[in-house]
Amino acid sequence: MAASAKLKGIFTPNLVPLDDAGEINEPELRRYTSWLIEHGVHGLYPNGSTGEFTRFTPEERRRIVAVMADEARGRVPILAGAAEANVRETIKACEYYHSLGVRAVAIVSPFYYKLSPQSVYAYFKEIGDHTPIDVTLYNIPMFASPIDVPTVERLSDECPRIVAIKDSSGDVPHMIRMIRAVRPRRPDFAFLTGWDPALMPMLLIGCDGATVATSGIVPEITRKLYDLTLAYEIDQARELQYKLVSLFDLMIYGADFPEGVRAALQLRGFRTGASRQPFSDDQRFKVETLGKSLACLLAEEGFAHEPIGGCPVGGAPVDPDQVARIVQGVLAELRGRGLA
Amino acid sequence: MAASAKLKGIFTPNLVPLDDAGEINEPELRRYTSWLIEHGVHGLYPNGSTGEFTRFTPEERRRIVAVMADEARGRVPILAGAAEANVRETIKACEYYHSLGVRAVAIVSPFYYKLSPQSVYAYFKEIGDHTPIDVTLYNIPMFASPIDVPTVERLSDECPRIVAIKDSSGDVPHMIRMIRAVRPRRPDFAFLTGWDPALMPMLLIGCDGATVATSGIVPEITRKLYDLTLAYEIDQARELQYKLVSLFDLMIYGADFPEGVRAALQLRGFRTGASRQPFSDDQRFKVETLGKSLACLLAEEGFAHEPIGGCPVGGAPVDPDQVARIVQGVLAELRGRGLA
Amino acid sequence: MAASAKLKGIFTPNLVPLDDAGEINEPELRRYTSWLIEHGVHGLYPNGSTGEFTRFTPEERRRIVAVMADEARGRVPILAGAAEANVRETIKACEYYHSLGVRAVAIVSPFYYKLSPQSVYAYFKEIGDHTPIDVTLYNIPMFASPIDVPTVERLSDECPRIVAIKDSSGDVPHMIRMIRAVRPRRPDFAFLTGWDPALMPMLLIGCDGATVATSGIVPEITRKLYDLTLAYEIDQARELQYKLVSLFDLMIYGADFPEGVRAALQLRGFRTGASRQPFSDDQRFKVETLGKSLACLLAEEGFAHEPIGGCPVGGAPVDPDQVARIVQGVLAELRGRGLA
Amino acid sequence: MAASAKLKGIFTPNLVPLDDAGEINEPELRRYTSWLIEHGVHGLYPNGSTGEFTRFTPEERRRIVAVMADEARGRVPILAGAAEANVRETIKACEYYHSLGVRAVAIVSPFYYKLSPQSVYAYFKEIGDHTPIDVTLYNIPMFASPIDVPTVERLSDECPRIVAIKDSSGDVPHMIRMIRAVRPRRPDFAFLTGWDPALMPMLLIGCDGATVATSGIVPEITRKLYDLTLAYEIDQARELQYKLVSLFDLMIYGADFPEGVRAALQLRGFRTGASRQPFSDDQRFKVETLGKSLACLLAEEGFAHEPIGGCPVGGAPVDPDQVARIVQGVLAELRGRGLA
Repeated sequence: MAASAKLKGIFTPNLVPLDDAGEINEPELRRYTSWLIEHGVHGLYPNGSTGEFTRFTPEERRRIVAVMADEARGRVPILAGAAEANVRETIKACEYYHSLGVRAVAIVSPFYYKLSPQSVYAYFKEIGDHTPIDVTLYNIPMFASPIDVPTVERLSDECPRIVAIKDSSGDVPHMIRMIRAVRPRRPDFAFLTGWDPALMPMLLIGCDGATVATSGIVPEITRKLYDLTLAYEIDQARELQYKLVSLFDLMIYGADFPEGVRAALQLRGFRTGASRQPFSDDQRFKVETLGKSLACLLAEEGFAHEPIGGCPVGGAPVDPDQVARIVQGVLAELRGRGLA
Repeated sequence: MAASAKLKGIFTPNLVPLDDAGEINEPELRRYTSWLIEHGVHGLYPNGSTGEFTRFTPEERRRIVAVMADEARGRVPILAGAAEANVRETIKACEYYHSLGVRAVAIVSPFYYKLSPQSVYAYFKEIGDHTPIDVTLYNIPMFASPIDVPTVERLSDECPRIVAIKDSSGDVPHMIRMIRAVRPRRPDFAFLTGWDPALMPMLLIGCDGATVATSGIVPEITRKLYDLTLAYEIDQARELQYKLVSLFDLMIYGADFPEGVRAALQLRGFRTGASRQPFSDDQRFKVETLGKSLACLLAEEGFAHEPIGGCPVGGAPVDPDQVARIVQGVLAELRGRGLA
Repeated sequence: MAASAKLKGIFTPNLVPLDDAGEINEPELRRYTSWLIEHGVHGLYPNGSTGEFTRFTPEERRRIVAVMADEARGRVPILAGAAEANVRETIKACEYYHSLGVRAVAIVSPFYYKLSPQSVYAYFKEIGDHTPIDVTLYNIPMFASPIDVPTVERLSDECPRIVAIKDSSGDVPHMIRMIRAVRPRRPDFAFLTGWDPALMPMLLIGCDGATVATSGIVPEITRKLYDLTLAYEIDQARELQYKLVSLFDLMIYGADFPEGVRAALQLRGFRTGASRQPFSDDQRFKVETLGKSLACLLAEEGFAHEPIGGCPVGGAPVDPDQVARIVQGVLAELRGRGLA
Repeated sequence: MAASAKLKGIFTPNLVPLDDAGEINEPELRRYTSWLIEHGVHGLYPNGSTGEFTRFTPEERRRIVAVMADEARGRVPILAGAAEANVRETIKACEYYHSLGVRAVAIVSPFYYKLSPQSVYAYFKEIGDHTPIDVTLYNIPMFASPIDVPTVERLSDECPRIVAIKDSSGDVPHMIRMIRAVRPRRPDFAFLTGWDPALMPMLLIGCDGATVATSGIVPEITRKLYDLTLAYEIDQARELQYKLVSLFDLMIYGADFPEGVRAALQLRGFRTGASRQPFSDDQRFKVETLGKSLACLLAEEGFAHEPIGGCPVGGAPVDPDQVARIVQGVLAELRGRGLA
């Protein structure tokens, strides 16, 4: 793939399988990488939020990308998360990923400190001026300093090496405002949404692609939704988008992110290991919650047989464990108020 | 100092001076460390938010504490910020800081991902069960996952090694709720506020001390305010608290944190170097803004002579550069809305 | 129109013209009502947020609906805002509007106090059980207590008289979740978006219509966008949606709502009078800001001639007054921080 | 009391007793008014947020003040909530309250619409220039447009009739900033806090008084806390402040505001009637939750005998009903996510 090809399609932000000792499980990571490619994703996106990049050391982050690039062997492009502690460390990471031949890097806006738009600009400007590899801005305002529209516009004007933005705000009008501000002067600049439940409308209003966590679990489904939407098969696409919202809600709101993604990945047959973030028993996502929903979604779309016991006509089954867990949280809250 | 002594007084979260190459300026860090001790701080707090811990590498964070511990030579206790990428790395850092003989570590709640109270609990529980050194919880909800009252209560009940909380919320009733929940069963547990503009009221409602950024700039003033407040010299303390609010507002709201602290430290005679976070020219804090205010505050309290030109009766002088900078931000915003 | 016909299409929330004494300008209100009908709106929506319902007395709110119903003479259905101080007063208003023959009422969730979902439920349940007329729930979380998905689901299950929801959150996945929860059992229940910049995507994911402020200014354009979208003319619809975002941003973010709508309405030839909410000179929306943008939008879509001087290729012209106004706000803010 | 006396002390925002038909229970309102005066409140504050002013008609709001003024017969000053639908109606209300001889009015910042500081200024400026009676600004940012420090400063400079601010933000540094900005030029301007859990620290940093809901339930306690604090009896005041936080948390976080206040008032022997805001059974505050806590607080401070069964050493008893209610809310939430 030529470096100048515009980023488009679905880039999967992948979770990293760990072994029992909490170390990167390389064979399983390789198997997962190839499985994703074989199931239709357009690209790979290691060291994203789903990939828990903050919970690895700088050396581990490099190794994750190296392993995946080696496994992919150019079959699909790679977008490598490259954010490190400061600009100098980030640029070093960019250089390393460039040497691996990945298509581009993605760099999240500075986090922990909440920076002003001017400082966010200065951060990316410095990177954009010194990177040897194409850069995707990563805007995720729920976790990091927001990258606002004027900042995207200014960076796209001044830095040819900045070629895309991944936006996880899920705000459709915000995406329209960015595209309107940038596309006329930078038709090569790509807009990727990071918000699964708005995938279809985001594509319809002009996005070039997506980096969505559900594509790491049901790559067949997200690819089908992508293709239907681009063909303006609105009615079919809408129906699939509704199902994706259900799956997303189960995975995302059932436990702290990305525990639901980890549980779902186990259901697809991968040994993920446990997170490096410890969870109390009552916070661990119960695989059973997702199992039938996931199986039924795949069956309904023709990617698998219906599970034993059949599928519900509508809605998902209740998980008593999940209810119990939330109730415990409530009791803890009451206790804090002197009520329990 | 015995490990069992309760934390109390003002622990200064120090900025780290850098040289022209952006490396840690060890001689200046040593000079600053001793200056703080000589000017009355009760303790030191490297690797806090003021210390920009996220912008250093793991190795650099260790070196900062080692240098300061060596320079302090036990004259005052040290509270070392020890948060790393995950629990295992954090515990390794705890072990290292323990080997240096520091009094305790402070560990910020997990950030980037917003964790539920149960996960925050599980994180600190794992650390509290395996740390060789006393731990201070660090709650800074504007930057990291909040540590709520029931979580503090539960951790204080279950982990003897967790001995304190630093809370930067600035919410006085919240502090009352924590003290009320924990102190009856853990009288040794210390409550430190991280919010300078509420220092006096926080001490009056029961806090044991503080870790406030202004103490790194005007340690004489914060010490005096601390002593007056503990002596119930309410009228004098109130007057000084008002002045501290003025200084804090100038330093904190004039530029992205901690650039105002850096500028102020230069006024106290230290070569801080530039931040590793790049700033555009119009975002750099102008030292002139702070100069006279700082000089006048010190003069009024008898710690320095009045600056040439005299001091204003009330209020701070306008800084046209600062105005210009903010106006540019406004124009950028207008531009984003298609208005400019 | 039969009471059982499902609500659909665009219902225009209209501003109320006032005379020089600040009283309702009935002739202008009548002229505006007929103009809207003649320009293609599907329905009328007096006493909405655009209609500044909170700034009128209970008697005035009744009069506004009576005048408009009389003027409309059944040409289009009316959705009358009916929220009053408490349930009893609201039901009395419902009875009155029913006597006027309007199609349905719209009732905003309780505001000022932030109510829990259970209390929001109880409020609408009491109304739903006692209203003589169909009710539209009005969810506008930026101004009033939110109506969450389970509450909409429960009310739609229990109250046949509750027949629709207007949602102004602008959150596309939220709309999907509501439709998915309610439509299977209540196919007659209508979903209307109140967020102009998401009109096209909202319709594409399944909304039945909209109540959007821009339809009171450019009813030709919103009708055209509605028709194009329903015909799946995606490319043309997208282009028009982009232009609507520009117009919306100019009107909504240029001054406190709904001052931009008032200014725009003047450009369409109506004497609106001044708001009952006083504005300082520097906060009044300058008509000039909007003039050319509005004229060019209409010209581009073939509804008017291009204005003298021509239209910009892209973007809107700067309004120096607006810039000055915002800068004054900034100076006031600096002053509050003791900086100016 | 001369109109020029500075407002100070505790003004009680009172709930309005209703009869079985939901009408104002005048005899009980009179009995409550006199009881408050006899139990030590410095002033009365009808039509505040606790008084549910938004749930009464304009005529009822006038009647509430008239009845209370008649009952008080000048024994204590009255601060009458006077906010109506718009400036003209508000000024008419001011004139009426002036004719009743009340000390001053309190006017909440515009709500529903979120106004900019400039518009908030213009609103109060128009009122301040035309009111025949002293005005207290009412800042309650959780419910209404915020009144920021520069706005308070500007209004206090320009409008002699604006003589005070009630601030319910609970933010101690914010109060310091307001006092610092206004007091030097307007020593007659009063600062009242509306946040019970910060009463003692607010008074210590310079507030003149308070309008706090707990003073309508335990006027003996809030008066004692006020007197202890002004006498700098810090240790005793702190202990009482802690208890007030407990009572406040029970009343405020146990149900939608002000249902906990209503339940507590019943425990003090008043027939409050039910709210005009309907509540589902599971949202109604259970009087039993509060009973013992309230009785024990009064007993501990010597204002009543200990209740039968004795008082807990620390903490409040669990209310199983309250737990059940919250759990139901959780289930509703799960249902909304398709999980139950």
